[in-house]
Amino acid sequence: MGPIKQASLTLDPAGMRLQPGQGLAQQIYAQLKDKILHGSLAPNARLPTTRELALALQVSRNTVVRAYEALISEGFVLGRVGSGCFVAELAKLVAEPVGGGHPPARGAVAPRTTLWACLQDFEPTPTLGPQARAFRHGLPALDLFPHALWSRLQARFWREQARPRSKSPRQAGQTVSLSYGEPAGLPRLRELIAAYLSHSRGLQCGADQVLITAGSQQAISMAALALLRPGDRVGMESPGYRAAAAALGLSGAQVVPVPLDGQGLRIAALQALGPLAMVYTTPSHQYPTGVTMSLQRRLDLLAWAEREQAWILEDDYDGEYRFNGVPLAPLATLDQRQRTLYVGSFSKLLFPGLRLGYLVAPAAWLTTLAKLRSVLDRQSSIADQVVMADFMAEGHFLRHVRRMRRAALERRDSFLSAWAQDLAPSLPLAYRSLRMQPIDAGLQAFWPLPSRALETRLVAAARAAGIELGGVAAVGGLPAHSQEAGLVFGFASVTPPDIRRAVAALAQAWRPIFERS
Amino acid sequence: MGPIKQASLTLDPAGMRLQPGQGLAQQIYAQLKDKILHGSLAPNARLPTTRELALALQVSRNTVVRAYEALISEGFVLGRVGSGCFVAELAKLVAEPVGGGHPPARGAVAPRTTLWACLQDFEPTPTLGPQARAFRHGLPALDLFPHALWSRLQARFWREQARPRSKSPRQAGQTVSLSYGEPAGLPRLRELIAAYLSHSRGLQCGADQVLITAGSQQAISMAALALLRPGDRVGMESPGYRAAAAALGLSGAQVVPVPLDGQGLRIAALQALGPLAMVYTTPSHQYPTGVTMSLQRRLDLLAWAEREQAWILEDDYDGEYRFNGVPLAPLATLDQRQRTLYVGSFSKLLFPGLRLGYLVAPAAWLTTLAKLRSVLDRQSSIADQVVMADFMAEGHFLRHVRRMRRAALERRDSFLSAWAQDLAPSLPLAYRSLRMQPIDAGLQAFWPLPSRALETRLVAAARAAGIELGGVAAVGGLPAHSQEAGLVFGFASVTPPDIRRAVAALAQAWRPIFERS
Repeated sequence: MGPIKQASLTLDPAGMRLQPGQGLAQQIYAQLKDKILHGSLAPNARLPTTRELALALQVSRNTVVRAYEALISEGFVLGRVGSGCFVAELAKLVAEPVGGGHPPARGAVAPRTTLWACLQDFEPTPTLGPQARAFRHGLPALDLFPHALWSRLQARFWREQARPRSKSPRQAGQTVSLSYGEPAGLPRLRELIAAYLSHSRGLQCGADQVLITAGSQQAISMAALALLRPGDRVGMESPGYRAAAAALGLSGAQVVPVPLDGQGLRIAALQALGPLAMVYTTPSHQYPTGVTMSLQRRLDLLAWAEREQAWILEDDYDGEYRFNGVPLAPLATLDQRQRTLYVGSFSKLLFPGLRLGYLVAPAAWLTTLAKLRSVLDRQSSIADQVVMADFMAEGHFLRHVRRMRRAALERRDSFLSAWAQDLAPSLPLAYRSLRMQPIDAGLQAFWPLPSRALETRLVAAARAAGIELGGVAAVGGLPAHSQEAGLVFGFASVTPPDIRRAVAALAQAWRPIFERS
Repeated sequence: MGPIKQASLTLDPAGMRLQPGQGLAQQIYAQLKDKILHGSLAPNARLPTTRELALALQVSRNTVVRAYEALISEGFVLGRVGSGCFVAELAKLVAEPVGGGHPPARGAVAPRTTLWACLQDFEPTPTLGPQARAFRHGLPALDLFPHALWSRLQARFWREQARPRSKSPRQAGQTVSLSYGEPAGLPRLRELIAAYLSHSRGLQCGADQVLITAGSQQAISMAALALLRPGDRVGMESPGYRAAAAALGLSGAQVVPVPLDGQGLRIAALQALGPLAMVYTTPSHQYPTGVTMSLQRRLDLLAWAEREQAWILEDDYDGEYRFNGVPLAPLATLDQRQRTLYVGSFSKLLFPGLRLGYLVAPAAWLTTLAKLRSVLDRQSSIADQVVMADFMAEGHFLRHVRRMRRAALERRDSFLSAWAQDLAPSLPLAYRSLRMQPIDAGLQAFWPLPSRALETRLVAAARAAGIELGGVAAVGGLPAHSQEAGLVFGFASVTPPDIRRAVAALAQAWRPIFERS
């Protein structure tokens, strides 16, 4: 222990001010630490005894003892409480921040990575209030979610965790724990998803091809990280899902917009773009325009991918919502060369806050994809995976999908009839040709518009009337691309009466705009 | 509609074989689709009527109708069921796979990214059975988790979802929904974490600095993606947490091992490495050796970071488990320049399968970090965030932390006394100097060994005796680094009687090895 210094740099308790209330020991500790770090308590200075300091600060001696013990255990102070404490001799103390005083000036140095710069430019879809309102897009009929059933399944999971010995036969050989699990996902859930895809979606695949992800967004970001190199070019439908475009850029790839027509992605335009490493597409129900890719286009796209040795990333975010006939088989079912990765999600069938989705990929890739998952965030929540597996295995899932499809169909019809009755007739003649795109599938309608300027005005007027509308600029505008315009109406998240009220309100809110133009 | 072709390429139902059981329509659909895609049913060929095919295949006519409708809706067949169906004229049909026949040959083309190659070399910690056994490391006392309480909080969340109008005062103004939420995390949970860090860990920070992540692994991978550029060099303690090393390499950075001594990371060795963009460190309790970084080293590391303009990534994965005195304040509390990012996790306090952790970063960065989260996987599970927030707000969390710390302390003491009593005396004299490192903190003990060869033999003998042990090679070996050796004993996940039994079993299992050597 060093010699005792002169009084000039020992502690003068008069300068210490404590806020009344909890945490007195913490305050003493923090103020002493600060004085030591900034040199106003010099190395080797002797601290007052705990009794002296307690008296000076009018606190209990125990409080000071706790503060001293913390300083000793962290190495700021040497000695033993009760037999003399000294400030430790520390080299390279913290310099005063430029400008003096603290807390330190805000404004940390900004990271200088390319990704950081890209992210700063990225405008994600804004987070909206919790109450679903007409016509928020991207949401299913959350009001139909079987809360009570889901809660019961969760309670059962926890009961079984509490009594690990009394396994139900359902779980025999499938014991799970609260510990770390398989990064690829709960084996039982992977099997159930493979069976669902094979039986209900026509996509023959094994559990060894299914990777559980935290929603479709993670499936896309993982594909981008695993398959794309900096400088690669990725084709993407335009307008398209902006969050997917951002994910595709994660490893430094450049996203190139590919125009659409009534049959989907234009293959001739794709070919004209030159070599691409990947194409991202939503063939079942293009986001946001709602176009279904024709069979010929699907075949052409696969032939192109084979020729170019490119990957196809198929995002089937709402493929279950097919209103005319059976749901279309995914593009991946036509792929004989394993160039298509298939992305699915439970967000549009159960609820987005669940964060469960999946990526279907060649079986030979699964080990490496699972390693990527383990490096990114290890795995999905174990309780959610078990409950989801039970929900599927016990038949609730297929029943719920049917009910959700019926509800979406009913809400679509309410929307279309309210539109035809209340809104379409209120449009001036010049705008009557702006027809709502047919809605054969999905959770939203798309209304093409002649200009972004009109789109902006209509969105603003709707918002003023309390109605949420996504313009292409906000929901599907890829950067640096031409100015398609239109409005997206999410009709599935609210009930028919709300839909009718909202259409009537829109007709009124928009009248001045259409009359002026 | 095209003209009818000659019979040669029309359908011969004799060649179709159906498996009995469910999915007959699906089988008919799939076989016809296959014939069309491969040209054995030619464009414009007329299909048999549904009645004819039903008769030929001995199935109900409705089954064939369903198959035909699927083919029509997907564009493989033109016409209307009942009035004549024809194969569509499709260009660029799928070529027969090389070698003929299908299902197509396995073995998809492998991706050629650098990350893919790195991941293939990465050996993650193997996923172990669900039942915790001595001495699995990285796990807390999962047997003490309050299942029933957690389950009740979850049930309450679902009840409130089912009755959104009758909000409890607790949730007033904090309504959440099953829909998409804030990528940065539930605001209430961010506030509670900031308050916990400020009051209990001495890390003064605001909710605007806290980003909720899917466990500490995602906090590390996000920091790597956001802050590192391809070719950057990142220093990492060696031996160190291998999954962190893999995450640090996600954006193409090179991980450089930095040796340790009894005070932690060696600053002189760090300086000798030349410019680094970041250092990853576990100062509270080095993983896996258990060393606590001294105060002087912390100050030197901060000074180095300021000089080099490097970031420090502090992983405080089990900082709450301090057995002597109060938990050490994080390194980040000494940082006046905002160069330290602080990573915390609930995995070691609640359970790893929960997947909730956090990153504390400069407030000015939070918007961009939240965008990165939204691009990677949008957000954490909403129900888990709400339940975690309730668990903290209602005082359960602090109580649970105290209980977990007491349990870990009791189990550490059981381990040390069993070791001293049953194992240490059985070691030959030459090995008596191999002392268990002091265990002042954390969930595991570290026993340094003279060679990897001995480590391998001891791990294998333990496994044969039914005891899990992590060798440095498996849990903390960084690639291309020198051969530190040692064993990691996770003592916290099993009860004292199990610990004593396991130590006795180890003494017996190892006797032949030590006698031979």
